[in-house]
Amino acid sequence: MNGADHLCDGLLAQGVDICFANPGTSEMHFVAALDRRPAMRCILGLSEGVVTGAADGYGRMAERPAATLLHTGPGLANGLANLHNARRARTPIVNIVGDHAAYHLPFDALLTSDIESFAKPVSHWLHRITGPGDVTPSVEAAVQAASSLPGIATLILPADAAWGEPSSQGAAPHKRLPCKAAPAEGLVKQVAAAIRAAGAGRVGLLLGGAATRGSALAVAGRLAESHGVKLLGEVFVNRAERGHGRPQLARIPYPVDAALAALQDIDVLVLVAAAPPVAFFAYPNKPSRLVRPDCSTLTLAEPGQEIAAALLALEDELGRGSGQGVSKAHAEPAPAPPSGVLTEDAIAVLLAARLPDQAIVCDEALTSARRFFALTAEVAPHDYLMNTGGAIGIGIPLATGAAVACPNRKVIALQADGSGLYTVQGLWTQARENLDVVTIILANNAYAILQGEMHAVGVHQFGRNAARMLTLDAPRLDWVSLASGFGVEAARATTCERFLDLLDRALRQRGPFLIEAVI
Amino acid sequence: MNGADHLCDGLLAQGVDICFANPGTSEMHFVAALDRRPAMRCILGLSEGVVTGAADGYGRMAERPAATLLHTGPGLANGLANLHNARRARTPIVNIVGDHAAYHLPFDALLTSDIESFAKPVSHWLHRITGPGDVTPSVEAAVQAASSLPGIATLILPADAAWGEPSSQGAAPHKRLPCKAAPAEGLVKQVAAAIRAAGAGRVGLLLGGAATRGSALAVAGRLAESHGVKLLGEVFVNRAERGHGRPQLARIPYPVDAALAALQDIDVLVLVAAAPPVAFFAYPNKPSRLVRPDCSTLTLAEPGQEIAAALLALEDELGRGSGQGVSKAHAEPAPAPPSGVLTEDAIAVLLAARLPDQAIVCDEALTSARRFFALTAEVAPHDYLMNTGGAIGIGIPLATGAAVACPNRKVIALQADGSGLYTVQGLWTQARENLDVVTIILANNAYAILQGEMHAVGVHQFGRNAARMLTLDAPRLDWVSLASGFGVEAARATTCERFLDLLDRALRQRGPFLIEAVI
Repeated sequence: MNGADHLCDGLLAQGVDICFANPGTSEMHFVAALDRRPAMRCILGLSEGVVTGAADGYGRMAERPAATLLHTGPGLANGLANLHNARRARTPIVNIVGDHAAYHLPFDALLTSDIESFAKPVSHWLHRITGPGDVTPSVEAAVQAASSLPGIATLILPADAAWGEPSSQGAAPHKRLPCKAAPAEGLVKQVAAAIRAAGAGRVGLLLGGAATRGSALAVAGRLAESHGVKLLGEVFVNRAERGHGRPQLARIPYPVDAALAALQDIDVLVLVAAAPPVAFFAYPNKPSRLVRPDCSTLTLAEPGQEIAAALLALEDELGRGSGQGVSKAHAEPAPAPPSGVLTEDAIAVLLAARLPDQAIVCDEALTSARRFFALTAEVAPHDYLMNTGGAIGIGIPLATGAAVACPNRKVIALQADGSGLYTVQGLWTQARENLDVVTIILANNAYAILQGEMHAVGVHQFGRNAARMLTLDAPRLDWVSLASGFGVEAARATTCERFLDLLDRALRQRGPFLIEAVI
Repeated sequence: MNGADHLCDGLLAQGVDICFANPGTSEMHFVAALDRRPAMRCILGLSEGVVTGAADGYGRMAERPAATLLHTGPGLANGLANLHNARRARTPIVNIVGDHAAYHLPFDALLTSDIESFAKPVSHWLHRITGPGDVTPSVEAAVQAASSLPGIATLILPADAAWGEPSSQGAAPHKRLPCKAAPAEGLVKQVAAAIRAAGAGRVGLLLGGAATRGSALAVAGRLAESHGVKLLGEVFVNRAERGHGRPQLARIPYPVDAALAALQDIDVLVLVAAAPPVAFFAYPNKPSRLVRPDCSTLTLAEPGQEIAAALLALEDELGRGSGQGVSKAHAEPAPAPPSGVLTEDAIAVLLAARLPDQAIVCDEALTSARRFFALTAEVAPHDYLMNTGGAIGIGIPLATGAAVACPNRKVIALQADGSGLYTVQGLWTQARENLDVVTIILANNAYAILQGEMHAVGVHQFGRNAARMLTLDAPRLDWVSLASGFGVEAARATTCERFLDLLDRALRQRGPFLIEAVI
C-alpha cells in the first residue's frame, strides 16, 4: 500500500465516496489507487471549474464533503472561481491538489507554481502532505476540517507522497480542530432582551448557512410568528428550503437602494450563520453597509455552531408561542398562464406552475429570474441554490453536483447565457453520468446585468467597444448545437407554448435535457 | 477625465491598443472610458482563459503587450492557467484586474478575494493602484515592465481609482526598472573558452526566449556551422522561426529517457535566454536534471537582455566562419502521401506538405503532433508556438491572439481534443473577429498522454475509475456541433482524402474553420 492507497482508504473510511476529478501526470499513482477501489465513484469534469462547482453542489445537498482531484497549480487555478463561491457558501469540500514530488520542486520544472498562494484565498484549511507517512493523519484532519468548520479543506499531495510507502510506525495524528462552542447563555439572553425591547416588526433574523433549512428554519418560523421578528435571507442563499408549508424568507434585494429600503425599519439585526449585509459592489455616493447606522447587530450563531440548538435556546428564552412556524408567505397569486412570445416573466410563471415536488432549483439566471423567486413561495416544496460568491459560471456544475447527491430528485438549472458559457463543459458530465437535470438557458444574448450597470454609471448610448464587450450576438450562440456537441438532448423555444411543451417533456423523462429559451 | 480615462490614454500613448476583455460591474467606468476611445480595440472572450491565452498569442507574435481586462479575483483566477503558460513564455502582457473600491474592501463583500495572492505566482511585476492620481504613473510602469523584463505586469485597478478624478498636481512617477546589462565581456570570453576546450559536437547552445528567431537565431546558426556547437531548443518553445533557410533546433525530447540520451554527449551547455533542462515531471528512480552531472552549464544571456548582441559578441570572440548559418536540417524526406483511414501520422504528413508560407502554427496536440515537428524542418518558413507551461487549454486562445497580431498570416491550431475542451469558448471570439484560423482537432477521445503515464506507473488494465477518468467517449464529443454552436464553420474527416479536401478548402478561404480529424 502506497500513500495514494492510504489516501483513498482514509477518504472512504470517513464517508467520502465521490471524487470529482480532472487528473494529470503527477496524480497517476492516485488515479491507480482510486482504480483499485470501486467503492469510490470518480466523476470526470472536462475542466476544473466543472469539478469544483460540482463538488459545491454535491456538498450543499449531501451535507458531507466530496473530494476533488486537481492537477497541480494550474488545475487548481481553473477551479478557483467556483471554490471562491463554495467558500462563501461554506460548503464542505476535500480539495485535493496534486503536485510534483517534493524533491523535484527546486528544479522549477515548467508546471511548477506556488500552489499555496493560489489556494489560500479559497481555503478554510490548507495542508501540504509531508510524505507517505503523513497521508493518513492528513486526510483524517482534512475531512474533519471540511465537515466541521464547515468549508474547504485543501490538501496538497506531492507525487512522492503518493507513490511512497509509509514506514511501519506511522505518523502522529494532526491536532483536531476544537469544536465550536454552543452560543453562551449570556449571548442568548442578550439577543432575547434586544428582541423584546425593539418590539414587533423592528427585528430582523438574518438566516444564512444551515439556518435556511430543516429544524433551524422551522424554529425560526415559529419565532417569526410568535415574536414578530422578520425572517430575512441573504442576497444569495446557499441552499434554502422553500415552498408550501415552510417559513418564507424575505431575501435582501441585490440593488443597493432596494436593500436599504428593505432594512430601513430594522432596529436590531440578529445574524444566524450569516454575514452582516453589505452592498455587493460599491457605487459612488452609496453606502457599503446596508443596515441603518444606528441598527444594532448581534450574532446569535456562526457557521459550524449548532444552529438549530441556538435558535431553540432563543425560543426557550422568549417563550414558545402556539404557532406552527409557517409564516404566511408574501406569495403572489398565481398569474394567468402566459402565451405567445416567450419572455423572462413568462418563463418564471410557467416554471413556477410546473415545479415538481422536491425539485432542486439551481439559479444562476441573474437578471432573468427575480420574478421566479417571488412566485414560488407557495409552490411544491423544493430546494433553492444560488451563486453565493459572485464568480459566474457556477450554475451548470452546481446542478451537476446536486444531481449526483440526490439521484431521485429533479434538478432544474435556471441559467443565464453569459454565465452558462463559462462552464458549459459541465453538460458533458451530465450526459455521461445520465444526471436528471433540466437546464433552462435564458438566452438574451447579452451580459444584461452589465448593460444595466453601464446605465448606472451614466452611459446610455453604447459605442463599438462597449457594445462588443456587453453583447453576445454576432455571432449568436446556438445552445442546441452546443448541448448536442456535449451529448445532451436539447431544443429551442421562442414561444410560451413551445417552452411549455419542452418543459413538460423534460420533466417527464429522466436524464439531462436543455431548453434554449430565447428571450 | 477620471482615472479610467487616464488608464486608457496611458495604454494608448505607449502603443498598447488591443484589450482582450471580460469585464464586470467593478470595471464599468473602465469600460465606459474604453468606449470613448475607438483607437483601442476591445476583444471579448467568453471566459478568462480565452482572454489571457489570446493575450499570450498576441504578445508572442506582436512582440509588444496587449492589455487584458479581468473582473476581480475570480475573473483573474479563471485566467491564471494561461497566465502561468505566458509567464513561462516570458510574453509581455499588461494584465489589468478590476477590484472593489478601496474603501469597500474591509466589508468583505461576497466577491472580495485576495487578488495579490492569486496574482503573485504568475506575475513578474505587480502593483495595486493607490488612487486616481496613481493611474498614469502605474500604467507607464506596467507597460515598461511588461515590455522590458519581458513578462506579465499585473495592475490591480480599484473601482474608485477608475471613477475618481486625479488631483491637478499629479503623482510622482514610479521608479523605472533598471535596464539589464549586456553580458559582461569576461563571461563571453569564458563561454568562448569553454566551447573551444570542449571541441566540436560536445557543446550545446540551448536557445530559449527571443533566441529562437530573427537575427539571434541567424547568429546561432553560424556558430553551429563554424564552431560545431549543437543548436538545442527547449522541450516547449514559445515561438520558433522554422522552415527552409533557417537554422534548425533539435528540441530536447519530452520523455525523460530520450532527453537524457539526447544530452548524453554534451559536456558544456550554454544557456541563451533558456532555463536549465529538467524533467517535466519527476518519476521514481529517474533524475530531475537532464544533463550529465559533470556537464558544465553556463548562462550567456537571460531573458530581457540583448540576446542577439550577446550571440554576436560570442561570435566575435570565436571568430566568424564562412557559413551562412543554415545548418543542414535533420528533416525527414517527404513521405509518400497517405490515403485511406486517417491517422495522427497521416495528418502530420498531409499538413506538412500543405503548410502555407509564413503560417503560424500553434501546437497543443501533445501526443499527436510529434511527427509534424520532424517533418517541417524544410517546409515553407513559418512560426511555431507551443504550450510553454504545461497548463492545458492554451491552443485555441493562443491561435486567436496570434491571428489578431498577424491578420495577414494563416494561423493553424493543431489541437488535441482533451486540452481543446478547456477553452473551446475561444472559437466564438475567432468567429466574431473573423480571424483567419484553421483549427485541426486531433480527436482521439481520450487523455492519451495520461493513458501512457498510467502504463508508466505499471497499470495496463484499466478498471472503471481509471477508464472514466482517462477517456472522453460515452458520450463522444461532437466537435462539429460545438464549433457550429460558437459560430465557426466546421466539418469532420475520418479519411485522408476527406481531410485533405477540408484542409485545402480551409486554407483557400479566409476566416475560422475547424476540422474534426477523427483518429
